[in-house]
Amino acid sequence: MQTPTDAAADEISRNSRATQIVRIENLLYRVPLRQVLVDAGHGDHTHFELVISKVHCADGACGVGYTYTGGKGGTAIRALLRDEIAGLLHGANSADIAGLWKKMRQSLHYLGCGGVVGFAISAVDVALWDLHCRRLGQPLWRVAGGHANTVPCYRGLIDLGFSEEQLVEVVAAEIARGHTGIKLKVGRPDYQTDVRRVRRVRDVIGPAAVMMADANYSWDASTAIAFAKEVAGARLHWFEEPVDPHDFDSYAAIAQAVDIPLASGENLRTFAEFREAIRHARLGYLQPDASNLGGITGWLEVARHAALHGLKVASHGMHELHVSLMAAQPNASLLEVHSFPIDEYTHRPFEVANGIATAPEVPGTGVEFDFARLKPYLVHEG
Amino acid sequence: MQTPTDAAADEISRNSRATQIVRIENLLYRVPLRQVLVDAGHGDHTHFELVISKVHCADGACGVGYTYTGGKGGTAIRALLRDEIAGLLHGANSADIAGLWKKMRQSLHYLGCGGVVGFAISAVDVALWDLHCRRLGQPLWRVAGGHANTVPCYRGLIDLGFSEEQLVEVVAAEIARGHTGIKLKVGRPDYQTDVRRVRRVRDVIGPAAVMMADANYSWDASTAIAFAKEVAGARLHWFEEPVDPHDFDSYAAIAQAVDIPLASGENLRTFAEFREAIRHARLGYLQPDASNLGGITGWLEVARHAALHGLKVASHGMHELHVSLMAAQPNASLLEVHSFPIDEYTHRPFEVANGIATAPEVPGTGVEFDFARLKPYLVHEG
Repeated sequence: MQTPTDAAADEISRNSRATQIVRIENLLYRVPLRQVLVDAGHGDHTHFELVISKVHCADGACGVGYTYTGGKGGTAIRALLRDEIAGLLHGANSADIAGLWKKMRQSLHYLGCGGVVGFAISAVDVALWDLHCRRLGQPLWRVAGGHANTVPCYRGLIDLGFSEEQLVEVVAAEIARGHTGIKLKVGRPDYQTDVRRVRRVRDVIGPAAVMMADANYSWDASTAIAFAKEVAGARLHWFEEPVDPHDFDSYAAIAQAVDIPLASGENLRTFAEFREAIRHARLGYLQPDASNLGGITGWLEVARHAALHGLKVASHGMHELHVSLMAAQPNASLLEVHSFPIDEYTHRPFEVANGIATAPEVPGTGVEFDFARLKPYLVHEG
Repeated sequence: MQTPTDAAADEISRNSRATQIVRIENLLYRVPLRQVLVDAGHGDHTHFELVISKVHCADGACGVGYTYTGGKGGTAIRALLRDEIAGLLHGANSADIAGLWKKMRQSLHYLGCGGVVGFAISAVDVALWDLHCRRLGQPLWRVAGGHANTVPCYRGLIDLGFSEEQLVEVVAAEIARGHTGIKLKVGRPDYQTDVRRVRRVRDVIGPAAVMMADANYSWDASTAIAFAKEVAGARLHWFEEPVDPHDFDSYAAIAQAVDIPLASGENLRTFAEFREAIRHARLGYLQPDASNLGGITGWLEVARHAALHGLKVASHGMHELHVSLMAAQPNASLLEVHSFPIDEYTHRPFEVANGIATAPEVPGTGVEFDFARLKPYLVHEG
């Protein structure tokens, strides 16, 4: 006769057979941008790359995850997914997200915990969370924290290549679209031009709107301090990546000298880097990115650690996914709505009204790609 | 009439046309190990991967560089070399090593400064140094510092999987081969077994030999401290990677509690990581690795920074190349002679006598692969 304990063990075993990973499919797309986007750190962007991982399970369920790049490294990310990660996770229980995350990190540790490894883990981790939420029949914002289904947002421009007139036009259009916050790029060798552009944008958006500036780590500390002092009247909400994101002592020196809070995170790629930044860089806002930090698991680690240190969490890029993660956290700051046109390739239009973004309500991550629209840009599959 | 200035400009232009990069060829090998090698951090090693980059110039000169892995990630490294770096450097002046290093770092920054990017840059950077030394007609040890052509060394074992009897046999054989220093692996959950093995090896090698222990970051600080106190009588020269290499505060706590100097570096992959480690981790020895840190350029940056802070530089792996880099530095400690059998695939046997290794005297890096012997293990080329 079967005891209740036997029955429970049987059910666990049945479930874990059902959730076993049988195949990971990886697709690499190279998607052109409508115009060349320029920032001070990374130069020209003509394309973005989208690496999509589909995790297939024994019961027929499939989770979809992804990462993206600014145009470089997609084939290396795909090589890791195909040649290392797919085999490592074959037959593993897809429901054990934390266990599989640790397994991937440990197995690929010598290749570097962040970097290309971080992008590859991100794609799979997002797919595992998608599966997890679908199995629970819940949207990501409920599973990842549940604080709310909306979050205030701002539009992040990649506008260093725009003329001043273009910049003003674009900013006005974004405000007309419902945005109440704007981040512009700075970081020119001639920082006075940046000072003028910041003041001009403040005039266009009016005193109530939120404004940030992002130097993409192209200045030294003294230029960053000089810039920040001269734009004091424009009331920046934060000053992003003034200098090399790993030079924490310079961040601390800038934070000491100026009144604008500092923000950084898109180039911190492991929990350890965030931990050291919290200890030494005096950041006001952390900006983890689930596409390069090891997915939703990596993003939530940083968000929770930020909360424990009384810091606000923000985000970088990937707004279609971060909207759910940010909304879910009580310590969320503002969601970045990014300039890569990812929303043209998904079935759900991204919703912003009056500076508030709304998270999807469907079970899963809510990021459902339009594979027919993406098809012309497919570079590799399988 | 041509002025002397014109003539000088012409010569520079002629030279830089001659040294222009016309092609980068990348080869990936997967080489089996004779026995499975085990450490506490990375588990079993059954193969190592060798990625060789040949940089071909307009004048027909060819520099050979390389990197290697513990068996994973080779295809991702090759993808970066083939799809990003080869195009980036096409037509560039191979003599501008520092400029090309910066160009690669900047272009691939968003993909992570260390990690897979670091391995890929390493292969090309070593090739550029090989070209540079060949053009000067000098061996690497003279060009990279010139302090000496010999350096004391020790044998680094990957012996966690060996029985105590095997360990004793291997250690005795290494001493008989001319080694005067031995590093063994520790890091078991049951650290008492490691204590016993350390004491046993000290008995075998006698009081005069140098001995180190390497935990491959598998312990926490309190286990590391307990271990170090119990092996005090065995007089370890250094204690390597007791805990997570990025948890600098724990290193500092261990350094405070025990008398053995700490060593770390194989998992620090950018100059910024070494800089932060120097500031916060109280390391006694830095162990940069030119195969994962961005090649010879990256290695020398760390070695010089160590000197400025009064620290000794050591090395990790890649002894056939590090012998020249270490010999060249006045602040060199001991060269690791690694367990991957790379010397079976080069034309020059690695020379150790009485614990002293000698750097090659031929122009270039002196690492000349036996491509015929490697051929059976070729996975990808071109």
